[in-house]
Amino acid sequence: MRSIDDLDTPAILIDAGRAEANIARAQAHADRHGLKLRPHIKTHKLPYWAKKQIAAGAVGITCQKIGEAEVMADAGLTDIFLPYNILGRAKLERLKALHGRVTLSVTTDSMDTLMGLAATFTDPGHRLPVLVECDTGMGRCGVQSAGEAVALASEIDKVRGLVFGGLMTYPGAGRAAETEAWLADAQQALAAAGLSCERISSGGTPDMWRSGEHSVVTEYRPGTYIYLDRYQVAKGVGSLDDCALTVLSTVVSHPTPIRAILDAGSKALSSDTLGLADFGELLGISGARVTSLSEEHGNVTLSGGAELRIGERVRVVPDHCCVVTNLFDEVHLIEGDKVIETLPVKARGRMG
Amino acid sequence: MRSIDDLDTPAILIDAGRAEANIARAQAHADRHGLKLRPHIKTHKLPYWAKKQIAAGAVGITCQKIGEAEVMADAGLTDIFLPYNILGRAKLERLKALHGRVTLSVTTDSMDTLMGLAATFTDPGHRLPVLVECDTGMGRCGVQSAGEAVALASEIDKVRGLVFGGLMTYPGAGRAAETEAWLADAQQALAAAGLSCERISSGGTPDMWRSGEHSVVTEYRPGTYIYLDRYQVAKGVGSLDDCALTVLSTVVSHPTPIRAILDAGSKALSSDTLGLADFGELLGISGARVTSLSEEHGNVTLSGGAELRIGERVRVVPDHCCVVTNLFDEVHLIEGDKVIETLPVKARGRMG
Repeated sequence: MRSIDDLDTPAILIDAGRAEANIARAQAHADRHGLKLRPHIKTHKLPYWAKKQIAAGAVGITCQKIGEAEVMADAGLTDIFLPYNILGRAKLERLKALHGRVTLSVTTDSMDTLMGLAATFTDPGHRLPVLVECDTGMGRCGVQSAGEAVALASEIDKVRGLVFGGLMTYPGAGRAAETEAWLADAQQALAAAGLSCERISSGGTPDMWRSGEHSVVTEYRPGTYIYLDRYQVAKGVGSLDDCALTVLSTVVSHPTPIRAILDAGSKALSSDTLGLADFGELLGISGARVTSLSEEHGNVTLSGGAELRIGERVRVVPDHCCVVTNLFDEVHLIEGDKVIETLPVKARGRMG
Repeated sequence: MRSIDDLDTPAILIDAGRAEANIARAQAHADRHGLKLRPHIKTHKLPYWAKKQIAAGAVGITCQKIGEAEVMADAGLTDIFLPYNILGRAKLERLKALHGRVTLSVTTDSMDTLMGLAATFTDPGHRLPVLVECDTGMGRCGVQSAGEAVALASEIDKVRGLVFGGLMTYPGAGRAAETEAWLADAQQALAAAGLSCERISSGGTPDMWRSGEHSVVTEYRPGTYIYLDRYQVAKGVGSLDDCALTVLSTVVSHPTPIRAILDAGSKALSSDTLGLADFGELLGISGARVTSLSEEHGNVTLSGGAELRIGERVRVVPDHCCVVTNLFDEVHLIEGDKVIETLPVKARGRMG
């Protein structure tokens, strides 16, 4: 069996045991609180983990791109939520084909999107569930008020090939209470309009852990929880030792006593800090932070007596694991120092 | 022939005429100043453009990864500079194989890197040129003083399979004068030590345009100049109309009068702003800026009467084109609205 030492750098390592523990911990939390878990595959983009998530008890998966959903359907995943406004003839045709082979649901936040769906899905015997996306404060997509949600839900229900499927939001981090109130208000307004709303889907790994029994949310779409990263650690979701994804890298230069250079730059770690200071830290080497990146170099600043030597291989815990996965064509599953499997990141690069 | 309208979004468009004009303009500047041009392929990662750059008069190409160099060698490029500290048996073996089939040169900034090269390249009949990388103020890799450069150059020249190939630096933007002084000083120190230094290689698109006849620099390695981007425009290298790379994107949501959402997020545009405000702007729509990104959504803030409608397709000029290329598996070459060719980004994902 290959060892980590046999891999060339930079490379993504996934500690399989940690990832499985993270899956189990989230599923147990969801089960305890009567929440359905519908993991977002954007983080790993791998059928391998999607199947493990389903096996652990998830009701289905979430994809952000039709191309991702197609890869997952090809791999045998059968229940897919695509919380995205799908527009344009090409994408709608692909969506229709997907609807023919998996249990599919989508979202809309506008009449424009709804009209495209309505023109494509016309079979009352096989209706597509369409959820209304709600902007509960994050400021991205979504209807702006409960009234707008009711109006759009009513329009969905008028279309013979569609059925109103509930409410969907992505609250963004730290907006759990605000989101809860928004959704409860919308649910009441829907009920008053005679519209039943049995599914309320929310997302975001950090807030999942704050969700309780009394939430109106019925389904959660966490993504990052499977791997974790520095951002999640900063949010208190776990420790560095719970992070399953690291980037194996080599020290290629050490120009000054406090500066060492890695062969992982912004094309391996991404420039996405999610607001954190630094671009990553080195597993097991406190006082070693990736303080700046150029495309193929990562500058490490050493402090507190931390030492590195040229040629040494280190493991970087990145700030945001989802965008790191998106940069590599393959990941290596490991147990300790053993490489147990190398997997192509099948759903990477599926832009549309 | 296909039109841009036939492409699904998000997608990279390369205006072929603009890219060719950018190549010609840089080559003319280099020729005028007696500079050798050795374009960095990190920006496009395409044999197609590398060959055009050579045809225009470049002396060779620059790659940052062995994997990139292998792709370029496979495509018929014959003179490749790899300004990187190559370490480890696997990479050194690949480097040796490359040396067997193209005119190759590399760099080092340490005895550690040099020892690996020395153990691998042992044939005095086919010596590998090794340049000394110099940190002229950017604070990345490189020896820290002219004295260190002389010491390392002397060590290179002692190795039978290697030959001292000159000096290399990446100055970073705006450090042209400082870099010039550093390199001139090192060149003199080398001469005093009896070491001839015929090749001095520098890089960075913005500073290339400030290089003059009296520079000690003999060779320039610009990358971004072929496509340009918002950062280069901000540095005065060209106008938005000179930018050859744009990301075709669809407006998928328009939740408020001043907020529209694109289907291009940080997984299409990257979070790399190079210090600019905003993540991109929309070609031909002044007052439309990409003000925030999540993974698959780009938030556009509209001002000054700018308008967008859901379903509309727009072209985003990104802040940093090199990292955008790195996110897509293919690019579309266009002339006006016609797609003249779709090219796989062959050297993308070659991490090692």
